[in-house]
Amino acid sequence: MPLLTPDARGVYPIAPTPFYPDGRVDMESLDRMADFYMASGATGITVLGQMGEAPKLDAAESLDIARRIIGRMPVPVVVGVTAPGFAAMRALTQEVMAAGAAGVMIAPPNTLRTDDQITGYYAQAVDAIGADVPFLLQDYPLTFSVVMTPGVIQRIVQAHSSCVMLKHEDWPGLEKISALRRWESEGSMRRISILCGNGGLFLDFEGERGADGAMTGYAFPDMLADVVRLTAGGQRDEAHDLFDAHLPLLRYEQQQGVGLAVRKYVMMRRGVLTSDAQRKPAAQLSAKARAEVDYLLARLARHDPRAAVQPT
Amino acid sequence: MPLLTPDARGVYPIAPTPFYPDGRVDMESLDRMADFYMASGATGITVLGQMGEAPKLDAAESLDIARRIIGRMPVPVVVGVTAPGFAAMRALTQEVMAAGAAGVMIAPPNTLRTDDQITGYYAQAVDAIGADVPFLLQDYPLTFSVVMTPGVIQRIVQAHSSCVMLKHEDWPGLEKISALRRWESEGSMRRISILCGNGGLFLDFEGERGADGAMTGYAFPDMLADVVRLTAGGQRDEAHDLFDAHLPLLRYEQQQGVGLAVRKYVMMRRGVLTSDAQRKPAAQLSAKARAEVDYLLARLARHDPRAAVQPT
Amino acid sequence: MPLLTPDARGVYPIAPTPFYPDGRVDMESLDRMADFYMASGATGITVLGQMGEAPKLDAAESLDIARRIIGRMPVPVVVGVTAPGFAAMRALTQEVMAAGAAGVMIAPPNTLRTDDQITGYYAQAVDAIGADVPFLLQDYPLTFSVVMTPGVIQRIVQAHSSCVMLKHEDWPGLEKISALRRWESEGSMRRISILCGNGGLFLDFEGERGADGAMTGYAFPDMLADVVRLTAGGQRDEAHDLFDAHLPLLRYEQQQGVGLAVRKYVMMRRGVLTSDAQRKPAAQLSAKARAEVDYLLARLARHDPRAAVQPT
Amino acid sequence: MPLLTPDARGVYPIAPTPFYPDGRVDMESLDRMADFYMASGATGITVLGQMGEAPKLDAAESLDIARRIIGRMPVPVVVGVTAPGFAAMRALTQEVMAAGAAGVMIAPPNTLRTDDQITGYYAQAVDAIGADVPFLLQDYPLTFSVVMTPGVIQRIVQAHSSCVMLKHEDWPGLEKISALRRWESEGSMRRISILCGNGGLFLDFEGERGADGAMTGYAFPDMLADVVRLTAGGQRDEAHDLFDAHLPLLRYEQQQGVGLAVRKYVMMRRGVLTSDAQRKPAAQLSAKARAEVDYLLARLARHDPRAAVQPT
Repeated sequence: MPLLTPDARGVYPIAPTPFYPDGRVDMESLDRMADFYMASGATGITVLGQMGEAPKLDAAESLDIARRIIGRMPVPVVVGVTAPGFAAMRALTQEVMAAGAAGVMIAPPNTLRTDDQITGYYAQAVDAIGADVPFLLQDYPLTFSVVMTPGVIQRIVQAHSSCVMLKHEDWPGLEKISALRRWESEGSMRRISILCGNGGLFLDFEGERGADGAMTGYAFPDMLADVVRLTAGGQRDEAHDLFDAHLPLLRYEQQQGVGLAVRKYVMMRRGVLTSDAQRKPAAQLSAKARAEVDYLLARLARHDPRAAVQPT
Repeated sequence: MPLLTPDARGVYPIAPTPFYPDGRVDMESLDRMADFYMASGATGITVLGQMGEAPKLDAAESLDIARRIIGRMPVPVVVGVTAPGFAAMRALTQEVMAAGAAGVMIAPPNTLRTDDQITGYYAQAVDAIGADVPFLLQDYPLTFSVVMTPGVIQRIVQAHSSCVMLKHEDWPGLEKISALRRWESEGSMRRISILCGNGGLFLDFEGERGADGAMTGYAFPDMLADVVRLTAGGQRDEAHDLFDAHLPLLRYEQQQGVGLAVRKYVMMRRGVLTSDAQRKPAAQLSAKARAEVDYLLARLARHDPRAAVQPT
Repeated sequence: MPLLTPDARGVYPIAPTPFYPDGRVDMESLDRMADFYMASGATGITVLGQMGEAPKLDAAESLDIARRIIGRMPVPVVVGVTAPGFAAMRALTQEVMAAGAAGVMIAPPNTLRTDDQITGYYAQAVDAIGADVPFLLQDYPLTFSVVMTPGVIQRIVQAHSSCVMLKHEDWPGLEKISALRRWESEGSMRRISILCGNGGLFLDFEGERGADGAMTGYAFPDMLADVVRLTAGGQRDEAHDLFDAHLPLLRYEQQQGVGLAVRKYVMMRRGVLTSDAQRKPAAQLSAKARAEVDYLLARLARHDPRAAVQPT
Repeated sequence: MPLLTPDARGVYPIAPTPFYPDGRVDMESLDRMADFYMASGATGITVLGQMGEAPKLDAAESLDIARRIIGRMPVPVVVGVTAPGFAAMRALTQEVMAAGAAGVMIAPPNTLRTDDQITGYYAQAVDAIGADVPFLLQDYPLTFSVVMTPGVIQRIVQAHSSCVMLKHEDWPGLEKISALRRWESEGSMRRISILCGNGGLFLDFEGERGADGAMTGYAFPDMLADVVRLTAGGQRDEAHDLFDAHLPLLRYEQQQGVGLAVRKYVMMRRGVLTSDAQRKPAAQLSAKARAEVDYLLARLARHDPRAAVQPT
């Protein structure tokens, strides 16, 4: 498998982990989901992130899932290796890289505060996983409570050539993209790939600011791929029209805590997952919430036929 | 002036404070803004909140602004009295209530953690301002880092008859509205007014869940009033159609830190404010951001003629 | 091995993990340390806590250490199983209980805020490890940023008979001990063992308030055992005299971040550890800090001959 | 009055605000306390800090207290002007400087995270109060949750010549003092005064590391003055002997939340304050806690006759 490079672009969905209602990993749905992502235009994939319920999997399950996806999707596979200690991070990294992963994703522990603490942490992480393993810096203050200035990202990028990508999900974050791209063009920062998360809430403008695409779990990765393509092709109005049609649902999905439940439910309605089950502990959708999602899907179907799901 | 009551409903805009570019309070724009809110269908108004740049005003300015609005808008005026200590909270409350305010808004200090700390704080606040002053509980974890369960809100409401309203801006928060309304109907909680903030990001569903309206600073309060009215009248699709047309801009405004800059800019473009100046310290809009807002306004104007602003 | 019970008392040292300077686990020192703890009057022992550098150990190393201690110390061995997910917590618990551990220690994740979140987390943990495994509730707001009221501890104790011990390290915390003991005597809470951590900084009064002993890593567990014994025997002045003699050093050890470096250094000076090496990442003692510790040891030796270490 | 300068040294007690049991400010005790501080060897004084219950005072009371102390104590008076906004900070600064204060103390708001946010905040504060007003940087992560690296302090000191003093209360903090003094001697940082807070818990070593003295509210400022003098005079053992005798009580005082109650109680026992009353909201000492403090005082009196207080 080729390694992750700084010129990665397109859409890397953040994959959930399918479960049966009894809690076992649903490998059939995993395969179907992999195929669905490929058909949706995915140019890569990220597994074992928070949305993948990674902390609820044991070590063997985690590795099985990573291997299955690597074997089935002919695109770069990024694996989340965030761990409470560097020993576990190193061990998981070695396993998944040996299995053919393209790179790893590292989120900062939520205790980091100062600039030096953040850059120091990533220096230690690189020391642990090896400077030859491409990694992705996850910048998500809303979830991790770690605030990285553009200058801190610059320091990490300049210090470690193995930092090839930013998972950009700061909010607000548009000016951060502009700042990083300006530094790159001025020559004060090495070029990296910037893929945007945060549920895709600002994807309509992020591409225009210089992002290379999306890395998020919205249940319509096909829409994400279209928006990225339209933006890259200069079809601004068309990109916004499509994005705006999805925004009511996308916004509904982008709710801390219950977002995964919404996504699994929509992916079940779309026929990708057999069940929307999560392992415990998990936030559940109320009957009212499911009805709201159904209503949003029905409204969306007027603009995007892909939302015309089977009635339950 | 009548006092704020638990049956308040409709739209209470959160008012910004207009400044001239040189930093003086712009009383002319303040008057124009007051008239604009009335014409937009406001059923009340909230001044001196965070969005009103209250901490940048001195005591005399704060009181002037409150009095001017009270004198000009024939609807209940809520005044933010959040303060680092109860002495200042008491003093400001007495002044604005004497000037004719309908009630006060109290946000929790961001050091509160446990349920008892939160209920204890509000008990002390009531002790400070007096049990005869109607107050509004502000529940905004994203900004204040204080997490209130529905049960904590219930305890505060049951303990203090002067708690007449919840400014609901938890996120996700739809189930919280449902829980509170269920307790009310079961008789385990007194009825209070629930007006929704958080930029209005879920207003399309909040009314359906039982909220009484909106209390937020989105620069199209006329749209907020329409959505609240349509929802209350059972015109669900029409409410969502209008809301969805505004969602791209509304979402753009709802960015922590720069949101106020966007709002003032739009209100200036709409002719309400003479300038979009903020007092320091303030996040500024870049040229690119202004162009993005202009683009969103132009797109919105296709669906809502109120967005057809003069070219700059 | 007998299981941990609510009548545990005495001193359970928190064991560091000895390393060679090259980073390998130093099993020889581990054995010597185990013998040292027994000779010091330990009535139990806790391994793989934060001070044991657990996150820097891989799974095999962790289990080796737990087994070695279990095999060598004829007292209850508590094992830290705090993990980012319940799958890992369950797996480690099953392994160490099978190996003869007496119980496990569970710290709360630092994202918990409300009372219900805390009690909910421990309900899920019990579900994961099994209701038959005795566990210890770690209450350390300074490190974990989770604030547990006495009422929350009461709820957890009442809900789970397998909660047999509180590692009490709230600060200030004396009134919490008194509150819990009062509820026990009133019959509104089941009796649990309370062992005190927080570096032992208030051990002189904690026993008088009703605590059963100490669970902390101060490098003179023999002193901790003496103070617990003197307090239990009603020799108040003698207990305080001994404690006060140690307080300057104990206070110096109780520094977040560098505390472990001080402890390992003192244990090396006492001849227990061959090296004071830590695995990376680790805070190091400066030459000045080492000299300060030496000075404190020399001063302490005037009162307590156990502090008369060999010159370096 | 002369202004605060970077060569300030000695002991600046943090003054509590004396109240009568009915809540009124006790000006008689305030005078007695001022005289007591002078007799104790104070070389300056700080009023209206957190320990002075500043947020519970209204504006007129605050100014009265500042003026009374300024009029009575012939040493530099530092006034806390920390406020939720720069308008209030500017107003209070102008008033107290006009009244003869020597400088002001500014704590960071607890929302600051990144290095740039911290330095940016102090730049704005200097802009607000004027570059001619000497100010003191308060570095107290335990209370404010703001972590300042030595490098951030250096940036603030180099950017603002009016930053003349650091209230050093980081914990652990000894290496920070050494780092700052090293930079000063290397010429990369301007010399500032460093006075140590954090209850004085490490004062025995802080002077040896280069601090100029203490700024804390321990109820025996006479001991603080002696320790600073002995350390400065090279009488190391004598300094530590005296400090160690006080450490059990000092440690008891240094408890977040109840510390002020202990201090006011001891100052009442020493005859300085008529009452140990605090304004609400306030943590109270239980009967057991008062007995513990009495016991510590009695034990201390064996070593330091100043602790031989009248029986209650």
